[in-house]
Amino acid sequence: MLDIHVAVAKVAHHGGGESGDTLETIERPGGGFSFVLVDGQGTGRGAKTLSNLLATRAISLLKDGARDGAAARAVHDYLYTYRMGQVAATLNILSVDFQSGKILISRNNPAPFFVIDPEGVTSHNEPSMPIGLQPMIKPMITELPVRAYTYVVIFTDGLLRAGERYGEDIELLNYLSAWPVMDGRSPTEMSEEILRRAMELDRGEPGDDMSIVVLAVLPGVETSSIRRLSVRAPFEDPTWPSPE
Amino acid sequence: MLDIHVAVAKVAHHGGGESGDTLETIERPGGGFSFVLVDGQGTGRGAKTLSNLLATRAISLLKDGARDGAAARAVHDYLYTYRMGQVAATLNILSVDFQSGKILISRNNPAPFFVIDPEGVTSHNEPSMPIGLQPMIKPMITELPVRAYTYVVIFTDGLLRAGERYGEDIELLNYLSAWPVMDGRSPTEMSEEILRRAMELDRGEPGDDMSIVVLAVLPGVETSSIRRLSVRAPFEDPTWPSPE
Repeated sequence: MLDIHVAVAKVAHHGGGESGDTLETIERPGGGFSFVLVDGQGTGRGAKTLSNLLATRAISLLKDGARDGAAARAVHDYLYTYRMGQVAATLNILSVDFQSGKILISRNNPAPFFVIDPEGVTSHNEPSMPIGLQPMIKPMITELPVRAYTYVVIFTDGLLRAGERYGEDIELLNYLSAWPVMDGRSPTEMSEEILRRAMELDRGEPGDDMSIVVLAVLPGVETSSIRRLSVRAPFEDPTWPSPE
Repeated sequence: MLDIHVAVAKVAHHGGGESGDTLETIERPGGGFSFVLVDGQGTGRGAKTLSNLLATRAISLLKDGARDGAAARAVHDYLYTYRMGQVAATLNILSVDFQSGKILISRNNPAPFFVIDPEGVTSHNEPSMPIGLQPMIKPMITELPVRAYTYVVIFTDGLLRAGERYGEDIELLNYLSAWPVMDGRSPTEMSEEILRRAMELDRGEPGDDMSIVVLAVLPGVETSSIRRLSVRAPFEDPTWPSPE
């Protein structure tokens, strides 16, 4: 038995209040899960509205059984049609498909993603365009087997730019290369540690919205088939004056 | 600052492989979160397909900004129209709405839900019908303020029936009455403990699908506005023969 465990952490750029990135997750109708991560062009309310619209479109298609590549193409076509090629967004879809027994990563994002397994770290940086700007954009699709001690790390480009203002670099590849893959540590540990490093590099005031998704396939620890989900967020009270 | 923390645990009835319950969560377009829990009539693939269709409908409406009561009514109308009053399902929507600053519980479910706060435990068991069987069914809607040390517990009826075959009862109200509300314990502790008790009463072989959702409002511990999500599930390998 194998356990699938996915951890997500999201932080808004300093002073923004709200992250422009949108992350949604659904249960696939044929079995398994998908995570949709959208980073809309721009900042603030406009970027958030855009990423929300696109993520909604993607999860609706996936919930209706559309394959990941078709969903990514349709979301691109929607954005390209209604914003007439003027607005861009990045779109990543990370799925664990129980029907085919595969992990699928669909990427419309110049930022790479990483896979860590017992053989080492692989940076998937095949050229990939964001959606919205040109006709007929296609996602880069990567298929991986579901095997124990596999980690998949996807993120929005804000993460790579942590520390940029101070001439520093997060050196994510170095960090991931040193990850003790056979220890079976939880993806939450990884996402928290990466986010902590990014926040430190930005001196606690992130220059951009940052989102990170870490999937881990680990040996199963339980005999019963229990599924768990946990969501945690600060409450943004609209009646409280902002501290700024 | 307050923290919103929601924990979900789901288990399929013994030998069923797949839970007929569907739980989906979305970020609300105006800010906040919604959790949709559907228990479709029957068991196995048919019940799962039904609950998946209904949950999909509900999250699509909520992502488009529909208010919770309208979403519940529309999902009922959809089921009633296309299954001609022949098929029932229970539907709970639990939302934290950042715009109004409220917790909203929309319930089409004979099973009650519980609220635990410093004043004690409240069982919300106002009469409520499942969706699908009669025209013009409405949800019971409860509004609560977002206040520290508030827990909301919703579940599918399988949980209440744990131990039934052995003449035992989960006595959820007793358990919740003894919850040390001011200790600020995580909702994960509560959902895990309740699920463990239910599994024990069913001697490790649940007689029905069981899902439990626990929301907690607790004093905030972090200064930065980080959102977290975690999903964990056993991998159901389609190529492995089932042990049964």
